Amino acid sequence: MQIVETIKQVRQIIALQKKRGKRIGFVPTMGALHQGHLSLIRLAKKHSDFVVVSIFVNPTQFGPKEDYKKYPRNLKKDAALCQSAGADLIFSPNVKEVYSKGFSTFINVEGLTQGLCGASRPGHFRGVATVVSKLLNIVQPDAAVFGQKDAQQLAVIRQMTKDLDLPIKIIGAPIVRERDGLAMSSRNAYLTLEERAEAPALYRALQLAVSMVKSGKREADSVKREMAKLLYRDAPLGEIDYIEIVDNEALKPVKQVKKNTLIALAMNFPSARLIDNIIGA
Amino acid sequence: MQIVETIKQVRQIIALQKKRGKRIGFVPTMGALHQGHLSLIRLAKKHSDFVVVSIFVNPTQFGPKEDYKKYPRNLKKDAALCQSAGADLIFSPNVKEVYSKGFSTFINVEGLTQGLCGASRPGHFRGVATVVSKLLNIVQPDAAVFGQKDAQQLAVIRQMTKDLDLPIKIIGAPIVRERDGLAMSSRNAYLTLEERAEAPALYRALQLAVSMVKSGKREADSVKREMAKLLYRDAPLGEIDYIEIVDNEALKPVKQVKKNTLIALAMNFPSARLIDNIIGA
Repeated sequence: MQIVETIKQVRQIIALQKKRGKRIGFVPTMGALHQGHLSLIRLAKKHSDFVVVSIFVNPTQFGPKEDYKKYPRNLKKDAALCQSAGADLIFSPNVKEVYSKGFSTFINVEGLTQGLCGASRPGHFRGVATVVSKLLNIVQPDAAVFGQKDAQQLAVIRQMTKDLDLPIKIIGAPIVRERDGLAMSSRNAYLTLEERAEAPALYRALQLAVSMVKSGKREADSVKREMAKLLYRDAPLGEIDYIEIVDNEALKPVKQVKKNTLIALAMNFPSARLIDNIIGA
Repeated sequence: MQIVETIKQVRQIIALQKKRGKRIGFVPTMGALHQGHLSLIRLAKKHSDFVVVSIFVNPTQFGPKEDYKKYPRNLKKDAALCQSAGADLIFSPNVKEVYSKGFSTFINVEGLTQGLCGASRPGHFRGVATVVSKLLNIVQPDAAVFGQKDAQQLAVIRQMTKDLDLPIKIIGAPIVRERDGLAMSSRNAYLTLEERAEAPALYRALQLAVSMVKSGKREADSVKREMAKLLYRDAPLGEIDYIEIVDNEALKPVKQVKKNTLIALAMNFPSARLIDNIIGA
């Protein structure tokens, strides 16, 4: 497994692999890798012959008061994990390599980016869509894998790829959880012991929603109400940012939970903002 | 020369040509082709082995009060002209093929698009950047050719291509003029006889600017003043939209005309809006 820092090097290596007839798989990450990321790499490997992982903490997707500076960075550890999962190439550019002087082009996926996390993180998905589009143009993979944990991000990337006619298959990968149900996230490391103890409540609220739906209580408002009750009771250190029940394509609120309905929530703990979701049917 | 209407067909044909080792050249147009377009096709041919011309009147780059509906369309005549200039493939999609249901992704090149034509045509360059990016992703050419007549468009495409890491060479082609100096444009056909008689004043104003600069009068404000005087005198049917003197990369106003300074102007005649420009040095 090679690690390269420049666009030129990535392009050379990938051109060679393509010449050999290899299909390219791609997993864009911000590093601080965990088992969730490794599952993406393994899934990419199933869909391709040569897997590229990018590790780049993208400044344009962080708000001015967010955690860009303190976001964990540990390339050595990440590289070992990538290798263990079967990655073939790591692309780890610095900010100047990605955003050259005078950079001024941004991609907006309208509509999809307004609700859910977009509402409390203005500009976030513009930064995500822009950097992902750049990375896809650099790597030119046959398939790219994104985690379902960032459900809105996945929907945005799918829409952008379709709208801009990128000839790339976008694959969503299931959420990987800790034993107690907490969705894996690089930001879990920020949590205090007390917050960490409360954090599995997010998943329990989603499980409650699913069990309500299974028992026939499909009305979105009452599902949301019961989820909020559970969170107030079990995670008092956190503050609910949103609980939303939307269709999983346009991300528009629905009144009844149906097939392909996305139940998503975000909570602000003092040390970290956590998100989680489930497809309720 | 083939004419195809679907993205799928274009991709198949181009994939085959690429497999054969052919370099792909691309000329995106809105049809209503004239000698200016044909010069772009010939230039593309010099830089490639297989030239694709797209003919698509792109609705998203027209303002609500602009000429989208009446924009001239004549595929048969355009096809004959493309063939005469050496094009190998015409891609002529309908609007639904390009903008599928739920389309919602737009590309903004910020800064560059605010002045000049961007000021009087809000949203125009957003539509241009978006459709050009789509067409570049569909055709995936090695080189794409754009006319220097739309100088701001060329600057926007260059910036977008660089910013989004599109592996495509962008080539600017010189303005082609009628005998009396009027820059060729599909919109010249809208002009009444009286307007057509006045229209060469745009080029004469640019020539005046160049001759002032040659004689040492490089101060942008006085060059603009003299250009305006000429236009008021020689083109009374028209109204000056702008006369701008800017650097040809960031398109920021300069005080002195130097090497690589762009002198650009736009005039609204009752029947058509005309633009023209020259690099003054």
